[in-house]
Amino acid sequence: MKKIESVSNPLIASLYKLHEKKYRDESRKFLIEGHHLVEAAGRTSGLEMVLIANENDAVSGVENILVTEAVMNKLSFTKSPTGIIGVCSFFEEPKLSGDRFLLLDNVQDPGNLGTLVRSALGFDIDLVVLNSKSVDIYNDKFIRSTQGAIFQTKLLKADLNLTIQELKKAGVTVIGTSMENHTPIAALLPPKRYALLLGNEGQGINPKLQALADQVTYIPMNDKLESLNVAVAGSIIMCYLSGNLKK
Amino acid sequence: MKKIESVSNPLIASLYKLHEKKYRDESRKFLIEGHHLVEAAGRTSGLEMVLIANENDAVSGVENILVTEAVMNKLSFTKSPTGIIGVCSFFEEPKLSGDRFLLLDNVQDPGNLGTLVRSALGFDIDLVVLNSKSVDIYNDKFIRSTQGAIFQTKLLKADLNLTIQELKKAGVTVIGTSMENHTPIAALLPPKRYALLLGNEGQGINPKLQALADQVTYIPMNDKLESLNVAVAGSIIMCYLSGNLKK
Repeated sequence: MKKIESVSNPLIASLYKLHEKKYRDESRKFLIEGHHLVEAAGRTSGLEMVLIANENDAVSGVENILVTEAVMNKLSFTKSPTGIIGVCSFFEEPKLSGDRFLLLDNVQDPGNLGTLVRSALGFDIDLVVLNSKSVDIYNDKFIRSTQGAIFQTKLLKADLNLTIQELKKAGVTVIGTSMENHTPIAALLPPKRYALLLGNEGQGINPKLQALADQVTYIPMNDKLESLNVAVAGSIIMCYLSGNLKK
Repeated sequence: MKKIESVSNPLIASLYKLHEKKYRDESRKFLIEGHHLVEAAGRTSGLEMVLIANENDAVSGVENILVTEAVMNKLSFTKSPTGIIGVCSFFEEPKLSGDRFLLLDNVQDPGNLGTLVRSALGFDIDLVVLNSKSVDIYNDKFIRSTQGAIFQTKLLKADLNLTIQELKKAGVTVIGTSMENHTPIAALLPPKRYALLLGNEGQGINPKLQALADQVTYIPMNDKLESLNVAVAGSIIMCYLSGNLKK
């Protein structure tokens, strides 16, 4: 097994650059950290290499490099490195196809986006479409908060206006979300093919996009709370639309 | 209006210490940051003082201190300070009373806990009970992620084993949560008085506590996803129990 002991080794230096979006986009590679994520990536064809602090952590089928603690600390995203880092190639860009879509307009928080992707996987969403202002899909905090779900989810960055128009032409029902004054979720008849539209944490959905929705729904609550967290609201609606809340 | 320009001013030094739990517990005070949180705190009796970078941000009814950017940067929790910091006194400890309870066993992530408190407020929970190993309720990340809901929510740190026994004696139905093999949520008849028990992000609920539950429920999903985020799962169940998903 190849060993690297120096933090100034050229490979380590080039991998370190993958902490920045600019270099990820250039090399079309990204880093992931931790056994759980590396395992999830290993079930896809995207895992290219692993760097391990301990020989026993070697992963079969890919190149393994044994590194020192100093190297691991340099590449790690966290204060307490887990001892394994994977190098992955960018996902193939999926096509706009399927029956159930999640459309995200300017979701900014990596944790919220990760949680939404996790729920989308569990509630049968075929494709997640994000506009260009949403979090980078190779951001480490985002990937961590998907808990590996990202490796089983199709993600597409695209203009949401064009996407919605295309989906509507294809007969997909576009469901906007709001805080009140629309169709309460329990009155919504889950369409067979739908696209659920969620907006920014503070501003909500861009009114121009909302205006394109076939229906607008909201989750009734008492009047003490202004709004639910966007990942929570989206997950409740996805769960409802999946039919899993019906007897 | 009083002005403080030096980061080594004794008051600033003592407020800075409130970043640490130890000093918060000693002085029974904590800091909050941002207009939204200060406003929420201002509607309670807990807001004692505000530090502002701009005279126009003065808050009525409490002591205002004008501070320099350097002082603001020192006290701030974020990289881009919002220009207003509030000093609050600890909440009064609530009693174990009410009809709807959220019991949290070892929820570790401040963001998850904050999101749960936010949902609990919207879905009519009367009291949130956390065991001693859960996140500190004066942690700044936790408070920020409640988006102010913490100032309208009753929170109690207590032994969950004793709490569950007491609630059961009082006729409250304790609902445990699991990933499968129990009562699917849609088959659950929402009790009038209930306590929803949620567990740690990785380990779930302590089996000893789960064994005390009157019912155990789960959210059905496809088999692609191992588990939902704990704040999402808890919020879906709270939403269901609130009756807001019924026609």
